[in-house]
Amino acid sequence: MLALPPQLLEISPHQLEVAETLLQVGRFLVIFIAARAIAEVMVRLQLPTILGELVAGVLIGVSGLHLIVPPETQAQLSAAAAGLVGALAEITPDAVREINVETFPSLQTVSQLGLFALLFLTGLESELDELVAVGVQASTVAVTGVLLPFALGTAGLYYMFDVPLIPAVFAGAAMTATSIGITASVFGELRWLKRREGQIVIGAAVLDDILGIVILAVVVAVVGGGAFSIGPVLKLCLAAVAFVGVALFLSRKAAPAFDWVVDRLKAPGDVAVASFVVLTLCCFAAQAIGLEAALGAFAAGLILSASKHTHDIDAAVKPLVALFATVFFVLIGTSMDLSVLNPFDPANREGLIVAAFLLVVAIAGKVATGWSYLSKEPTNRLVVGLGMMPRGEVGLIFLGLGSQAGILTPALEAAILLMVIGTTFLAPILLRLVIPSEPGESELKALEQSS
Amino acid sequence: MLALPPQLLEISPHQLEVAETLLQVGRFLVIFIAARAIAEVMVRLQLPTILGELVAGVLIGVSGLHLIVPPETQAQLSAAAAGLVGALAEITPDAVREINVETFPSLQTVSQLGLFALLFLTGLESELDELVAVGVQASTVAVTGVLLPFALGTAGLYYMFDVPLIPAVFAGAAMTATSIGITASVFGELRWLKRREGQIVIGAAVLDDILGIVILAVVVAVVGGGAFSIGPVLKLCLAAVAFVGVALFLSRKAAPAFDWVVDRLKAPGDVAVASFVVLTLCCFAAQAIGLEAALGAFAAGLILSASKHTHDIDAAVKPLVALFATVFFVLIGTSMDLSVLNPFDPANREGLIVAAFLLVVAIAGKVATGWSYLSKEPTNRLVVGLGMMPRGEVGLIFLGLGSQAGILTPALEAAILLMVIGTTFLAPILLRLVIPSEPGESELKALEQSS
Repeated sequence: MLALPPQLLEISPHQLEVAETLLQVGRFLVIFIAARAIAEVMVRLQLPTILGELVAGVLIGVSGLHLIVPPETQAQLSAAAAGLVGALAEITPDAVREINVETFPSLQTVSQLGLFALLFLTGLESELDELVAVGVQASTVAVTGVLLPFALGTAGLYYMFDVPLIPAVFAGAAMTATSIGITASVFGELRWLKRREGQIVIGAAVLDDILGIVILAVVVAVVGGGAFSIGPVLKLCLAAVAFVGVALFLSRKAAPAFDWVVDRLKAPGDVAVASFVVLTLCCFAAQAIGLEAALGAFAAGLILSASKHTHDIDAAVKPLVALFATVFFVLIGTSMDLSVLNPFDPANREGLIVAAFLLVVAIAGKVATGWSYLSKEPTNRLVVGLGMMPRGEVGLIFLGLGSQAGILTPALEAAILLMVIGTTFLAPILLRLVIPSEPGESELKALEQSS
Repeated sequence: MLALPPQLLEISPHQLEVAETLLQVGRFLVIFIAARAIAEVMVRLQLPTILGELVAGVLIGVSGLHLIVPPETQAQLSAAAAGLVGALAEITPDAVREINVETFPSLQTVSQLGLFALLFLTGLESELDELVAVGVQASTVAVTGVLLPFALGTAGLYYMFDVPLIPAVFAGAAMTATSIGITASVFGELRWLKRREGQIVIGAAVLDDILGIVILAVVVAVVGGGAFSIGPVLKLCLAAVAFVGVALFLSRKAAPAFDWVVDRLKAPGDVAVASFVVLTLCCFAAQAIGLEAALGAFAAGLILSASKHTHDIDAAVKPLVALFATVFFVLIGTSMDLSVLNPFDPANREGLIVAAFLLVVAIAGKVATGWSYLSKEPTNRLVVGLGMMPRGEVGLIFLGLGSQAGILTPALEAAILLMVIGTTFLAPILLRLVIPSEPGESELKALEQSS
């Protein structure tokens, strides 16, 4: 807003504001240009754009240009970026780096809004009746997809690699997650979200999230040294069941009430704001009873999927998803440190071997879920299995918690990271390879031509 | 994500995350429910909804329930809110208050996004040819609207109220601003944005922003004790002129290039992302040459107003405006401390008298601008004058800088705050009173019935 004379203060409030604005705006700029450029390449290769967003994140993140460096990675903002912003705001590059760390949470909030918007949209576009119809199959897939990787991973690490029990259990637990964000995004783009396979995978991913919360609670309670107490675990299970039950009930009853209210609103932007109120209410309620806020976002979409304003809500949410879910996926990419993949660094070798084992188990354990359920109607079981595969942000959250608690050795940390990266990148590629040979091909071609 | 046993840590990363999420989501919830409720009342009173958003902010902010308390106001989060979040996250209310202060910048980032989106939309919906056509009138209005309040305010404070020269100059400078956000929002809602009056006011408000930057630079340079140096001021002026010139040039040349690029994009969400890249690019450029980033957002809209995708861009930006500009206006309301208005507190009396003077000058000095220009076509000069009146966030920024620099006495601070509050609240009310008696009435009635 103004140029303060340099003698006034070392870093004036003005310089601080300029640097903050440049960093905030500049980060969006870098994220969107990179994501869009790689996404366009992916579309031409007939791969899902989310893969482009992840790759874009890797290129500009801690494994690449260091333009976007989440503080928890401990990486440093690139000298060029810090120098440029420093020169423009007339402060030192070190001060820029400090401001970068301090203002980063704002970007993460925007990214979180993107995840919520994506899950809300996923819920909104779900056919509730179909989701209920696949309830049994989804539950079987979810439970299998949790038990198999957990059992195989823990046992393998403990018996084959002599990893102590607690880290082995933790690594096994980290393999149980399914990234509903990545799955929903890929299925949505390939127009398989409303198919039976899509509904099973989304339902299973939601249940997985709930199971994941329970497993994590148990594991951390055990690791925390306290005796394993059944109380909190039971409480979480009950909360999860109650939440899903209430959401299912409300989706039948609350949508007419929502429509009644919206019809009575006269101020502009009524549908967008009213939907956002439902969204934040559900997120708050989910978090308040100890579940993930993201689960609330999905439930909110599910509740409003019966509204007669679905089309308007959809139109209001889509730009939010286009903008902010991109930020979410790019940020996942930026925090992936691919240097652990370098086989020429001897320090990486142990991790790479363990990682190869974990990756195989992680893939096999989830792909096998495709054959775990009974279905009268024919479904593409490989698509279901592959859809359950990406660990994405949920895997990274597990990893972050394990790191923080000091449970994991560097090699095991690297191996889990590699398992997360591998499943996250392979799932969209493999799904894209599997899906064109399906009856949906003509539909897809029409879609590509029209876009 | 999990319930850690309380003995593990005083505040575990999990409790911290739960409290953060509850606060972030809860703030949105409170903001949207309050804003929507009061906005609905305003619509029924035929008043602009932005007034409802400001009032909602006052009700839930530092003058009301203390549910949303910007850290710079030094106010405390209400005991009920801190207690509720504390109970849910199993931490103390004091810890909640600390986390509230720490996470507040994220909300301010979202609010900033809302302001940018609103100004972008304002630029997008401007008829550039008409804006250029009113260039001379807008310049006259802007210069008059800066000089009159500055001269009258400074002279009055110095001669009539014996305020020392520097604070008097600063208070005078604080009266020069025009809040383009509030003006654009009110004119947009009343469908006067594309009329001659609307274009003059928006053009003048943009110029005002530039003049305000220059005045602030001069005042702060003088106040900072350094000798007044012409260099930086000249640099700012040149930058501003260059920026506006480049934006005007690009609006003719860049829109076809933008269309060419968008037509070649294939990944979903192309228009939203491409527009956002232009938006962030312009914000970055504006901030980089020392101007307000918000000015860049307006220029970006202006540039894209010639695109053939305007309709799609409009549809993508409108939900962002509905959601995030609401956050912006509510936050302005939350930071207004109305306790300085209490005439029964003797400490307020001096401030109230000075405030009454400033308010009269602030209103008269801007309303007079309506009669400052020559126009062959008939225009409603009162609408132009009233449109220039609201100081809004720009006035608050001036006030904040003056406070920070320790230039102002509490009484003068209160008086400036009152001037800002008064003009911000009165402008939408008076505009609404003046506008129905205009030829636009039938148009408005049709609008009201259709909504």
